[in-house]
Amino acid sequence: MKMSKMFMPTLREVPAEAVVASHRLMMRSGMLRKLGNGLFTYLPLGLRSFRKVENIIREEMDAAGALEFKPSVVVPGEIWRESGRWETMGEGMLRVKNRVDQELVVSPTAEEAFTALLRGEISSYKQLPMNAYQINTKYRDEIRPRYGVMRGREFTMKDAYSFHADEESLDETYRAMGKAYRRIFRRCGLSVIPVKADSGAMGGTGSEEFMVESEVGDNNLILCPKCGYAANDEKASCAPDPVTSGPGSAPAGKAFSPVETPNVRTIEELTAFLKTVPQAFIKTLVYRAVNSELDLSSAPGCAKLDRVTPASSPAYYPESFFAVCVRGDLDVNEVKLAATVKASEVELASDRDVERLTGAPVGFAGPVGLSSVPVIADLSVTAMHDAVTGALKADLHYEHVEPGRDFTPWLTADVRTVKAGDRCPVCGDAFYAKKGNELGHIFKLGYKYTKSMNMLYLDENGKQQYPMMGCYGIGVDRTLASIIEEHNDDDGILWPMSVAPFQVAVVPIKYEGAMKDAADRLYAELSAAGIEALLDDRNERPGVKFKDMDLVGIPVRIVVGDKNLPNVELKLRSSKDASLIPLEGAAAKAAEIVRASLAELSAPSGED
Amino acid sequence: MKMSKMFMPTLREVPAEAVVASHRLMMRSGMLRKLGNGLFTYLPLGLRSFRKVENIIREEMDAAGALEFKPSVVVPGEIWRESGRWETMGEGMLRVKNRVDQELVVSPTAEEAFTALLRGEISSYKQLPMNAYQINTKYRDEIRPRYGVMRGREFTMKDAYSFHADEESLDETYRAMGKAYRRIFRRCGLSVIPVKADSGAMGGTGSEEFMVESEVGDNNLILCPKCGYAANDEKASCAPDPVTSGPGSAPAGKAFSPVETPNVRTIEELTAFLKTVPQAFIKTLVYRAVNSELDLSSAPGCAKLDRVTPASSPAYYPESFFAVCVRGDLDVNEVKLAATVKASEVELASDRDVERLTGAPVGFAGPVGLSSVPVIADLSVTAMHDAVTGALKADLHYEHVEPGRDFTPWLTADVRTVKAGDRCPVCGDAFYAKKGNELGHIFKLGYKYTKSMNMLYLDENGKQQYPMMGCYGIGVDRTLASIIEEHNDDDGILWPMSVAPFQVAVVPIKYEGAMKDAADRLYAELSAAGIEALLDDRNERPGVKFKDMDLVGIPVRIVVGDKNLPNVELKLRSSKDASLIPLEGAAAKAAEIVRASLAELSAPSGED
Repeated sequence: MKMSKMFMPTLREVPAEAVVASHRLMMRSGMLRKLGNGLFTYLPLGLRSFRKVENIIREEMDAAGALEFKPSVVVPGEIWRESGRWETMGEGMLRVKNRVDQELVVSPTAEEAFTALLRGEISSYKQLPMNAYQINTKYRDEIRPRYGVMRGREFTMKDAYSFHADEESLDETYRAMGKAYRRIFRRCGLSVIPVKADSGAMGGTGSEEFMVESEVGDNNLILCPKCGYAANDEKASCAPDPVTSGPGSAPAGKAFSPVETPNVRTIEELTAFLKTVPQAFIKTLVYRAVNSELDLSSAPGCAKLDRVTPASSPAYYPESFFAVCVRGDLDVNEVKLAATVKASEVELASDRDVERLTGAPVGFAGPVGLSSVPVIADLSVTAMHDAVTGALKADLHYEHVEPGRDFTPWLTADVRTVKAGDRCPVCGDAFYAKKGNELGHIFKLGYKYTKSMNMLYLDENGKQQYPMMGCYGIGVDRTLASIIEEHNDDDGILWPMSVAPFQVAVVPIKYEGAMKDAADRLYAELSAAGIEALLDDRNERPGVKFKDMDLVGIPVRIVVGDKNLPNVELKLRSSKDASLIPLEGAAAKAAEIVRASLAELSAPSGED
Repeated sequence: MKMSKMFMPTLREVPAEAVVASHRLMMRSGMLRKLGNGLFTYLPLGLRSFRKVENIIREEMDAAGALEFKPSVVVPGEIWRESGRWETMGEGMLRVKNRVDQELVVSPTAEEAFTALLRGEISSYKQLPMNAYQINTKYRDEIRPRYGVMRGREFTMKDAYSFHADEESLDETYRAMGKAYRRIFRRCGLSVIPVKADSGAMGGTGSEEFMVESEVGDNNLILCPKCGYAANDEKASCAPDPVTSGPGSAPAGKAFSPVETPNVRTIEELTAFLKTVPQAFIKTLVYRAVNSELDLSSAPGCAKLDRVTPASSPAYYPESFFAVCVRGDLDVNEVKLAATVKASEVELASDRDVERLTGAPVGFAGPVGLSSVPVIADLSVTAMHDAVTGALKADLHYEHVEPGRDFTPWLTADVRTVKAGDRCPVCGDAFYAKKGNELGHIFKLGYKYTKSMNMLYLDENGKQQYPMMGCYGIGVDRTLASIIEEHNDDDGILWPMSVAPFQVAVVPIKYEGAMKDAADRLYAELSAAGIEALLDDRNERPGVKFKDMDLVGIPVRIVVGDKNLPNVELKLRSSKDASLIPLEGAAAKAAEIVRASLAELSAPSGED
C-alpha cells in the first residue's frame, strides 16, 4: 500500500490518560482512537494487526479440530435466567429491554448461547466430543475502563466451548487447547506465563490462565524461580511453615489463661502491649458467605440455615456465617476462601453480625469457646504453639492457646494469601511475585451449564446423560496490546513479523526521479512476492518519514537515496545497523528476511 | 474438510415459521439456527459462505480505494444526541443505560460514529476525499422479525462513509461505489435491480438502491419493460395522463355548481350516486406535516406557524397542515409527499383537524374556496376537466369544476403512487411492478451530519468548511439469503461457485477399500490444488449422502463407486447429467471447473 492511499494519523503527543506503553503507542502510531469511555475504533493500521492476531488464533483453533460458529452478540435474557447467571453476573453485564419488553443481553461471554444452541443439536454420544468457537464482539461494563484496549468495555474475544461424553475426552481437548494456546502466543511473539488459576464464579475443577507480565496487571502471580511453579495468588499454595510461636514461648503443657487487654484491638496494638510478634497470634475473622453449598450450620451450636434446593443444580444456603483463623502476620485470601466454602461470594461480616455471633465487640473474636459459627482454620494455624487469641469478651485475650487442644476447627484448609518469600510447595524454594494480565484462560466447567440448562444426550446404552463441558477464551484486543507492551522501545513499536501491519517499509528520501523509480520497483517486486509493503510516497522530510516508520514499527525498512543508488539501505527495526545492498535483488532479500522470521515464529517448539 | 470433522446437522423437516426458501434451506442444510426472536447463530457451514460474501465485499471496497476501520458496536448515546437522531431514530434503536448511567446505543448504523471519529482527524482539504468503511454487527429492533436472516434484528452490515471537499468529488466516489456494488453482486451470482430510491429520513440529494426480486419484499418496484426505467414506488414518476373527465362531460365554459349529496362521502358512494367514474373526481385529503422546511402558512388565509431556526441546519416548522388533491382513482404516496413538503413525516390529519380546517365533516373537503391551508395538487389534477369536488359543507359537492379556473393550487407536484399499467416517463411504455428487497444502498448525504456534528476542515484558502458526505451500505446476511433465494431448486441450494461453502464434494459410495483410497486421493489432490473439498466419509447409505450434498448445494460432485473404478462420476449440481471420467486427472478436471466458474463470476462486464 502507498502512504498516500493509507490513513495513518501519527501523533507526536498523546492524551494524558494513555499511561501504558501499548495505549500510548496505539494512539501515537495511528492504530486506535477513543470513541467513548472504554470504547475504541481501530483505524486501518490497527485493524491490520488486529486481523493478524485473530487469524493466528483461528488457524490454531481450526488445526486443533475446533469449529467456528457465529452466534449473535445480542442474545435473549431468557437463556441467562436458565443458567442462573442472570442473577449472579452482576452489573457488569449489559441488560436491555427492547420495545416489546423482551430481555436482552449484550454478550459478555457465551456459555449460555452455545449450550442453548447445541442442546438442540447434539442428541447422541456419536456427536461428541465437539469443540465450538467464535471470534466475536463482547461487552463487559467495566466500572473503570483504562489502559486503552487492555481494559476496555467492548472487546473481541475468541471463546470456545467443548462438550464431552466423559472426563477423559474433556481432558484430551483441554490439553489440546493448552497446546494450541502456547502456539498462538508463541506465533504472536509473546512470552506468556501459564499459571494455575482459581475457578472463580464459573465453577469447575481445572483451569489454566495464560498471563503476561504487566506493571498494571490485574493479577498477582506467585512464581518459583527453581521449579517453574506458577500460580495466580487467588489459587497459589505454599509449603507448610515450621511450627511458630512467640519469643520465649511457654512449654506445650501450659493451660491457656485470660489476659486483660484494655482498648487493645489490632494486631499492632496487641504485639506492642504483649511485647511479642504477630506470628504468635491467631487472628479470627467472621465472614458472611453468599450461596454456599456447604452446610455451615452443621457444627454443634450453630443455628439452622435456610436452604434452597433447585431442580438441576446443587442445594445452597443463601446466607451463612463462619469464622476463619489465620496466623497474625498472614492475610486471608477471599477467593480461596470462597472456593473452600463453595460460595459465590464471601465478605467480612458487619460489626453488628460480629457482635451478635461472638458476643464481643469487633477485635476480640477467637476460636476458643466459639460455638455460634463453625471455625475454619488456615493450615498456618495448625502449626502454631502457645498462641494468643481473642477471648470473646471486650478487652480480654487468651494466652498459651494450643490449637487442637483448646479448640478444634470445623474445617482446616489453605486460605492464606501466598506472597513473595513464601516457600514453593513443590520444591521448597522461595517464591517471587509479579503482576500479570490474563490473555487467555482454559477451563474445565464440568456439568455446570449442561445440568442447569438441561442439555442431554443418549450414551452407548441409550441412557440420557449430561455432557461435560470445557471453555477456552482469549482476549484478542488485549493480546494485541500485550504484544506492543513486550515489543517496544523509545522510538515506537517493534512488531513481531507475524502481526506487523506491514512487513517491509520502502522509504525514498524523495519520491521523484531515480528514487521514485527505484522505490516503485521495490514496491512492485515485494508486492509480486506476496510481501506486505508500505511505500512512503509522501512529500515529507526524510527525518519525519524515518520517525514515523520507527513509531509504526515495520520490521524491515529499505531506504532509497540518491547518493546510494544503485545501492539501497536495508535496516531491521530491531537493529541499529543498516547495510547497503544492490537495488537488484533487494526485494528478494527483504522477502527472505520476512519469510525466515515468519517461519521462526511458527516453528514447533518442545512444548508442542 | 472431512464430514466426520464437520458439524452439519441437515434436517428433513423445518420449523413452520420458515416460509421463504432461503430461511428454509439455511435451516435444512445446517447453515443456521435460531437463538431468539430475530437472533441467529451461523453454524460452521453457513459461516463459510457468510465469510465469502463478506470477503467479496471487502475486496471490492478495497479495490475502490476505501479503507476499513473497526469502531465499537456499542457507542455513546451522546453522539446520537449531537446529530439529533437520538430523537428521530425511534424505538428501532436499542438504547441502554449502563451501571454508571451513561447512555449507550447498540449501533443500528454509523454515520455518527464515523463523523465523530474523523472530525478529530481530518483538518485539511489535503486529507480529502476519504472513504471509510466497516463490516460489523448492527442491531435494529424490528417489531416483527421474520424470514430468517432476511429480516433479523441483529445483522452484519458493510457500511461506508465518504467525506469530500466538493460535490464533484462526492459524485466521483458515489459513482465508484455504484460500480463496486454492481461488481459485488455480480460476483455473488445475484441479479440486482438498481433503482432510484427516495432519500427517506436520511435526507440528501441522490441515492440508488440495489434490489432483488422477492415475493416477500418490503419494496414495490416500478419497472419499464422497454427502456429499463426502474424505481421504488416511493420515488417513481410516470408520464402525464391524457386529459380526463367523466362520461358525457359538460363543455369547458360551464360554471361550477353545487349538488346535494346527502350521506355520500366515499368515492364509491359518489360514483354510484352521480353515475360517473372515479376519474371524474378530485379527491381532497388534509395532511399534517412534521418538521417541514416549507412555510406552509405562506398561502393567503393561512395562520402563521411556529418556526424553529437551528444554528447549523435549515429552519423548520414543527407542525403544519395542508390539503392534497389527486384524481379520484389514484392514491397519494406519502413518501413522495413528505419529500415534496420537505418534512420528516406526513400523516392524514385527524377528523377534528379536518373539520376545523375545512369547516365541514370528513368527506366533503375540496379545493374550491379552501383558504385555511395551502392546496397541493398532484399533476394528475391539472389534466382534469369538468370535475366533481367536495364543497366544504356537509352533504354538498360541486360539479363542473375546472382546475386553474375555479381554484389555483399553491403548489403542483408529483405525489401519486405509480402502479403497474401507468406509463414510463422516459419511453411511454406501460410499467410492470415487482416486490423487491433492498440489499444495498448508496446515498449522497450532503452536509447533514458534518453540519449537525460540526465537522470542519480548512480549504485551500485556509477557510473553514464543512465536508460533504456520502454513505454506502450492504446487508451481508440479506445478501447471503438472497443468493439462496435466487439459486435453489426442489432438492436444495445451487451455490454460485464464489460463495459456495465448499467447491467440490467427494462422495464415496462406501468409505472403505478401493473406494476409500480413491476418495482420499481425490481429496488430497483437490486440497493440494487449493480447492475447498468436502469428503463425505460418513457411514451412510449413498442415497442419504446424495440428498445431503444436493441440499447443501456444493457445485461439483465426484462420486466414487466400486463399479465405476478406475472411473469416477463427475456431476454439476446445476445439471442433471453426470459423466464418467478417469480417476486419474479427475481432481484436475474438477479444479478446472471451479476456476473457470470463479473467473466467469468475477469477469469485468460492460457495466464496469
